[in-house]
Amino acid sequence: MNHKSNKLQLVKLGIDTQHEFIIYMHADCFVCKSEGFETQAQVLVSFNNHSIVAALNVVHSNILKSHEASLSESAWKALGVKEGDIVNLSHLAPVTSLTYVRSKIHGNPLKPEEIHEIITDIVAGKYSNIHLSSFVTASARNNLSIDEIISLTKSMIETGKQLHWDYPVVMDKHSVGGIPGNRTTPIVVAIVAAAGLVIPKTSSRAITSPAGTADTVETMTTVELTMSKMREVVAKEGGCMAWGGTLDISPADDIIIGVERALDIDPGGQMIASVLSKKAAVGATHVLIDIPVGPTAKIRSNQEFLKLKEYFALVGKAVGIHVLVLKTDGNQPVGKGIGPALEAKDILAIFNNEKDFSIDLKNKSIELAGTILELGHKASLGKGEALARKILESGAAFKKFLAICEAQGGFHLPPTAKYTHDVVATQSGIVTEIDNRNLAKIAKLAGAPHDPAAGIEFFARLGTHVTPGQPLYRIHAIAKGELEYSLAYAKTIPHVVKLDTKE
Amino acid sequence: MNHKSNKLQLVKLGIDTQHEFIIYMHADCFVCKSEGFETQAQVLVSFNNHSIVAALNVVHSNILKSHEASLSESAWKALGVKEGDIVNLSHLAPVTSLTYVRSKIHGNPLKPEEIHEIITDIVAGKYSNIHLSSFVTASARNNLSIDEIISLTKSMIETGKQLHWDYPVVMDKHSVGGIPGNRTTPIVVAIVAAAGLVIPKTSSRAITSPAGTADTVETMTTVELTMSKMREVVAKEGGCMAWGGTLDISPADDIIIGVERALDIDPGGQMIASVLSKKAAVGATHVLIDIPVGPTAKIRSNQEFLKLKEYFALVGKAVGIHVLVLKTDGNQPVGKGIGPALEAKDILAIFNNEKDFSIDLKNKSIELAGTILELGHKASLGKGEALARKILESGAAFKKFLAICEAQGGFHLPPTAKYTHDVVATQSGIVTEIDNRNLAKIAKLAGAPHDPAAGIEFFARLGTHVTPGQPLYRIHAIAKGELEYSLAYAKTIPHVVKLDTKE
Repeated sequence: MNHKSNKLQLVKLGIDTQHEFIIYMHADCFVCKSEGFETQAQVLVSFNNHSIVAALNVVHSNILKSHEASLSESAWKALGVKEGDIVNLSHLAPVTSLTYVRSKIHGNPLKPEEIHEIITDIVAGKYSNIHLSSFVTASARNNLSIDEIISLTKSMIETGKQLHWDYPVVMDKHSVGGIPGNRTTPIVVAIVAAAGLVIPKTSSRAITSPAGTADTVETMTTVELTMSKMREVVAKEGGCMAWGGTLDISPADDIIIGVERALDIDPGGQMIASVLSKKAAVGATHVLIDIPVGPTAKIRSNQEFLKLKEYFALVGKAVGIHVLVLKTDGNQPVGKGIGPALEAKDILAIFNNEKDFSIDLKNKSIELAGTILELGHKASLGKGEALARKILESGAAFKKFLAICEAQGGFHLPPTAKYTHDVVATQSGIVTEIDNRNLAKIAKLAGAPHDPAAGIEFFARLGTHVTPGQPLYRIHAIAKGELEYSLAYAKTIPHVVKLDTKE
Repeated sequence: MNHKSNKLQLVKLGIDTQHEFIIYMHADCFVCKSEGFETQAQVLVSFNNHSIVAALNVVHSNILKSHEASLSESAWKALGVKEGDIVNLSHLAPVTSLTYVRSKIHGNPLKPEEIHEIITDIVAGKYSNIHLSSFVTASARNNLSIDEIISLTKSMIETGKQLHWDYPVVMDKHSVGGIPGNRTTPIVVAIVAAAGLVIPKTSSRAITSPAGTADTVETMTTVELTMSKMREVVAKEGGCMAWGGTLDISPADDIIIGVERALDIDPGGQMIASVLSKKAAVGATHVLIDIPVGPTAKIRSNQEFLKLKEYFALVGKAVGIHVLVLKTDGNQPVGKGIGPALEAKDILAIFNNEKDFSIDLKNKSIELAGTILELGHKASLGKGEALARKILESGAAFKKFLAICEAQGGFHLPPTAKYTHDVVATQSGIVTEIDNRNLAKIAKLAGAPHDPAAGIEFFARLGTHVTPGQPLYRIHAIAKGELEYSLAYAKTIPHVVKLDTKE
């Protein structure tokens, strides 16, 4: 077919559609007409030997001329174009791997090469949200065997960039999400690197939570590192705290996670592939997995935990990673802060040994770091925690933390919000239950994470005895409107902190 | 929460996203900021006591000002707004029915009230493509019981408009798609109405095929009828041929079908609910279902056919419809024409008894019409076809067809394409197989259905003996570019018509 004349000039409309790649063309565009492109057609957009697949939105107004096209922000970035560039457009050849998705819908097991083709096509942008959601749904309900999970993990590693280190042992950690706060990473990285182990940690930004580790660290230093900058930091300090989003490791995972969040499901098989593909791709050899277990956490029973633990170990072995799984308390937030800067302040209070530091966050960080020290043979079995505590309390960890920040671009203090409001107890009682989900939502409505200073300081840990007027939590916001909005929502949910009021 | 100030003025950007409701707001918009709306947030958009749910696309250019918003074309139409209208924006309350979708993902049966809530939310636009695809996928693989299919059908009927007629018997027909041509409806409606039965037929436009019945009829008369106009036509002539899209019957079905087409799956349970919800909603009491069975048709085995037949009868009974299922030949196109005007010409050739009319289309139309005449007690068992043939060949059917067209807005002849090209046999042989799918694609690339005159005339029916140079099919196009494009694709698929070349 003759595609010589299928060229249009790019105009920037600046439309952010998140992950979805959209191409905009005018209804009178000759390419639409000659190619028979209709709305939602999948179009192969090429520029300088690089291609993406975008869904067509047809425009019936003068924001585009008939010889022009535009791309959604993510597609614009992925194709690496600038205004005025000429792109070539053609039909997307049929996506044969969708046959395997249909096979999975019908309950059939998939072969490794079939899973590889699906993941390759997902990374190439050939799957629309409809296709992605169908693949995710068809793979849920324990529909993936251990062999399929291993194939999925391997395919996700191979379809992205991979880091290789010259160190024989490279440590890493991951916390299965679901409870607010829990920002142990910066403390753990500092202790582990101070002890002389290598820990090139990459983290994600928040997608639906009030803060991701990358958001928190960003309130204190630069997290958008290039691959070479990251290597430089690790070579110098033994550890780093980078945002994984710029590194193109396991890109299929980022796409699939977006769909899972929208569906609010996190099927076990895909979770294991997600975590271990990222860890393998960054070159980790030893990984600690922190799994909070509790009635409102992601993992709710010991039985679920044990199955997950077994699968993590099997898949880890298949991709060459030594995995250690730790069961932790998933009943309530870890630390006081919920939101990027507030979580950073929790961390700094621990490093500085301030008087009202969060003991739970400190202890959990020491527990995780201690386990990693044992895993990396820096401490013998049972001695890791003591060593981790010593490194933290001696100030060596803080020194390492500041050195890593310096190497990444310099340390600065997290910002403070202008407006605060205390939500107080209206009765006496003992805190018996915490609604983690709505607590996170209130923090988000206050502006977290897009306003880094916004969020919640949480005071009412389980077992706390409160009296009327005593603050349960404090909302932080940078604008009065956002404070009020968050507060209005909080008032509709009086039982975020549940009290036992019996005498 | 105070939404008094959440108002923006509408500007028309004219972006067609097909079914998806999108709202566009500027990144600096105060509503985005104060509400904490981020890209892909689900926003409740209200105007004059009417609301829709739209996904947010944030705009970073001057196509919108910060106090302005825009809606995708389908959302604009659904909300019934005009440029300059002020809309109110707020957060969508959590969609509780997604809990039931997750339950179905985990393989649990759904209660009637749960299915009803899902369908209600789908019609209200609360499900994104991701949610819809998950529901469709989780319901495939025979995951719907007969009770669930009945609940689904009832919910789809109840969440749209319903027609009620004063006639005791109201006939209808439906052909399960999958083979090109097969445009029996106008002939069947004409015969049945001429015989004195009531048949208020609604049809769809093409979504992925080269023509829908509504597209074909539109080349001869008006098909976009209001509800009252449709009643008027039926009262006067006993039948009509309207496009169902304007009538708001079973709107959930239109939404779900869009997702199924994208996935290229048509799970049995949902297909039955789709067909029977539309038939019940238009007030049909007796429905004939035409199911073509063949190796490349939608239904490929007699076993599949028998199960579908049983389920159609059970669901029909539950919603008060007498259903009769007919197995027909699904091996090849029915009629010569593929494309709106070419199919219309086939129909007119039969009405006019022209010398080269399509005998297969005529016979199938007579078979279907005859069965309906028996079903409506206009003919005794076994005598329907003879009566149907008599009505057709006497000219009574054509007279009725023209009268219906006249009542709908006047009859006119279908258009003719300017460019044609014959694809010819290169060898001698007997036609043994036809690739229905690629035949449809070639017709689409030639411009059908958006150019009504474009498409294919097909000459090489199964068993035809062809010699080199003999035309297998003729491509019709209104532009030279489209003809060439279609032809270039046809050349990549030499076996659209497969020959047995052995002597």
